[in-house]
Amino acid sequence: MSETELSHEIADAEGENQLDEDDRLKPEYVRAVLDAVEAGDAEGARALVEPLHPADIADLFELTPHEDRPGLAHAVADLLDGDVLAEMNDYVREDLIDALDPREVADLASELDTDDAVAIIEDLDADEQREVLRQMEPDDRAAIEEALSYPEESAGRLMQRELIAVPEHWTVGDAIDYLRGHEELTTDFWEIFVVDPGHKPVGTCQLSWILRTPRFVSIADVMKREQTLIPTDMDQEEVALRFQKYALISAAVTDASGRLVGMITVDDIVHIIQEEAGEDTLLLSGAGDGDINEPIRFTVRTRLTWLTINLGATMLSASVIGLFQGEIARYALLAVLMPIISALGGNAGTQTLAVMVRALAMNQLTSSNTLRMLGREFSVAMCNGAALGMIGALGSYVVFRDPTLSAVFGIAMSFNSLVAGIVGVIVPVTLDRANIDPAVSSAVFVTTITDIMGFLSFLGLAALVGLGG
Amino acid sequence: MSETELSHEIADAEGENQLDEDDRLKPEYVRAVLDAVEAGDAEGARALVEPLHPADIADLFELTPHEDRPGLAHAVADLLDGDVLAEMNDYVREDLIDALDPREVADLASELDTDDAVAIIEDLDADEQREVLRQMEPDDRAAIEEALSYPEESAGRLMQRELIAVPEHWTVGDAIDYLRGHEELTTDFWEIFVVDPGHKPVGTCQLSWILRTPRFVSIADVMKREQTLIPTDMDQEEVALRFQKYALISAAVTDASGRLVGMITVDDIVHIIQEEAGEDTLLLSGAGDGDINEPIRFTVRTRLTWLTINLGATMLSASVIGLFQGEIARYALLAVLMPIISALGGNAGTQTLAVMVRALAMNQLTSSNTLRMLGREFSVAMCNGAALGMIGALGSYVVFRDPTLSAVFGIAMSFNSLVAGIVGVIVPVTLDRANIDPAVSSAVFVTTITDIMGFLSFLGLAALVGLGG
Repeated sequence: MSETELSHEIADAEGENQLDEDDRLKPEYVRAVLDAVEAGDAEGARALVEPLHPADIADLFELTPHEDRPGLAHAVADLLDGDVLAEMNDYVREDLIDALDPREVADLASELDTDDAVAIIEDLDADEQREVLRQMEPDDRAAIEEALSYPEESAGRLMQRELIAVPEHWTVGDAIDYLRGHEELTTDFWEIFVVDPGHKPVGTCQLSWILRTPRFVSIADVMKREQTLIPTDMDQEEVALRFQKYALISAAVTDASGRLVGMITVDDIVHIIQEEAGEDTLLLSGAGDGDINEPIRFTVRTRLTWLTINLGATMLSASVIGLFQGEIARYALLAVLMPIISALGGNAGTQTLAVMVRALAMNQLTSSNTLRMLGREFSVAMCNGAALGMIGALGSYVVFRDPTLSAVFGIAMSFNSLVAGIVGVIVPVTLDRANIDPAVSSAVFVTTITDIMGFLSFLGLAALVGLGG
Repeated sequence: MSETELSHEIADAEGENQLDEDDRLKPEYVRAVLDAVEAGDAEGARALVEPLHPADIADLFELTPHEDRPGLAHAVADLLDGDVLAEMNDYVREDLIDALDPREVADLASELDTDDAVAIIEDLDADEQREVLRQMEPDDRAAIEEALSYPEESAGRLMQRELIAVPEHWTVGDAIDYLRGHEELTTDFWEIFVVDPGHKPVGTCQLSWILRTPRFVSIADVMKREQTLIPTDMDQEEVALRFQKYALISAAVTDASGRLVGMITVDDIVHIIQEEAGEDTLLLSGAGDGDINEPIRFTVRTRLTWLTINLGATMLSASVIGLFQGEIARYALLAVLMPIISALGGNAGTQTLAVMVRALAMNQLTSSNTLRMLGREFSVAMCNGAALGMIGALGSYVVFRDPTLSAVFGIAMSFNSLVAGIVGVIVPVTLDRANIDPAVSSAVFVTTITDIMGFLSFLGLAALVGLGG
């Protein structure tokens, strides 16, 4: 079968068939698109891409190597609408936007709700930003400029201005007539907000309640008065936790005076929940935001900074070994066993640390239960330490037949396990109280402490009982 | 101020004031409730708890020590409805349910949508489960029994059966009249599903579209035909990724024959997104599910298993050191520097690993871009390795003034950094292709390889050039 035939077969198939069972674009499909682009067959490429969902077109760009993206963008230019850009990875989008002129960017942004338009425009340089805004309609521009006046990653940036707000004295029928009679209103809403004459929210009404209620009933009798309001300056992580905790679909955003200024919907929050929950894995290892689309020089800088800090910390713990060079020179077995103690201490510490960092991120740890958690981790560390010390002592005796060495080894291992359990709780809790993100900096403290205590207890004890003496 | 006065002051205040700025219950509030319970003042405790949102009542139980939970449950028994149980941590809920009789559990479960009722009932022992089901209304029982017939963590367990489905030939007015005319229908929906005569979904209609359209328009003209259907046997992690990717609010669940059997809404998915994204942090460190409410014996078992596996792996790498005892005895500085090499290799490997595990979990890595990612990580490792080797060589020269030692140290550090970058990609990708969760088992492979290669390169090179010879 020729390549052209193959392409057409895929293009004819339904969108579903270009995806594997994990909703990822199939490699052979990606290759077919890129082959068409490379062969100058823009129409063929367009035919292949056209059936895709915007989220999948965004994925296609992410799966395309950096250098092939402009060609692909050129071939499928008319499919690149705002929805596609909104779904795209930040770095890939910047790449693409650099290739467009401000007029085109402005057109794309105008199609979108404020929140998605802001997400695209906030990443531009100040100059480009000004130029794009200059090209937009005054209304759109004003909305975006106001959004940009809120801090990054705040509710003010996340919210969309397009929402439905109705006065309390209306009936269900009034609300339905209003929605039917005003073409310009958004269709992207799941609840309507009920406001007082000062435009302050007094209640929320699920659309299902309106649909299930006769026209003559007052909105005030249908709405729920308990509301979860989001202040414009709330950090997006807190917004995400609030959505999750109270199982919200949308929420009203209010300014400092309590007036309703915007709305956040859950579909914009799921990305943030995912990101915030996942970033701890990356932060704990010092991999920054760990985005696989990040330019390499940024990745190198982030990771190298962290590795250098760790190098310093490791040198500190190595200097503890330096104190015992005499013992090691006389009894080199000490050097063989000592990394085991530090590795296991580090491991046990990291386990506790990971649990604490998650609990802190989920707002599960308060001063009501911190002491209880310390007790819990201490008990776990006691059990694990006792078990590991025993295994270590027995194992080393079987191999080396030196009872003193085995006793020292086992005791040091148990002791370091306890140290790990305690610092694994205290370090992240202390950093959190000092308003330092425990995910970013805890690991280096915990492993340095377990390394030092591990080397010190093992080598110190060895020196004390005269091993290598 | 007496304790009673204090309690009443808090009880009089609005719900908001019992929460700190992170939506966590304030410690003094929790203490006031528990003090009232302990003093036998059930009414006082109830008055304090009554204004809370169900999610906050659930939190209150989580913040209460294990042994005080039955007393609290007794005091606020009438506030403990199904919504509270649905929001509660699994372990805490099991605790509580053990204290209730099957009749009470059945009453609670009957109040809930199928998905929440299943979440409560699926955790019970087989005997208790049978007893609770026996106490339920036949309809509820049938729905829950069917849900339980699907595999754990599948879409069939997650879905609720309560949904709105209408035929394609209806008008908007027909749909509204149907919703107004049938008391028994759910109010918990955000979209309605349009089905063909065989009850197979043909389209989805946002409620906002229905509200904004005149009564005479046909549903078929309002609905969106593109749908994201969820098969009953899909794993919840895939369901969560699909919701996130396509920004879904709700989705139809279909059985093997394509019939509409249920609906999943996004508010049930945010917990799963949060859990699945966060669990990698815990799995990578071998902390299991890392739930702070888990009984200690389970925690010890999970962590100890992992630590024992690591002990075995560390012994393997320690045996490499054993090969060079002669060199170490003659030149103990080798023992001082060697942990630095293994620590930094482990660190660099963990960075790469964390990035790859995240990318795999987010379905960002396919065979289209794996090779590119390996190249990317290799470049990063080259840069970092060169920089760290230089710093290490210079630093050790300043301290020890031995040019040969410094050269060996720097070269081994650079080399191990490269090893880390390569195994950090290859190990998780290989495990993933073999259908083994890379988050669970990658770390031990990666750090063992970087330890062995680190010790081998440093000590081997040292022996080769005659250091300690």
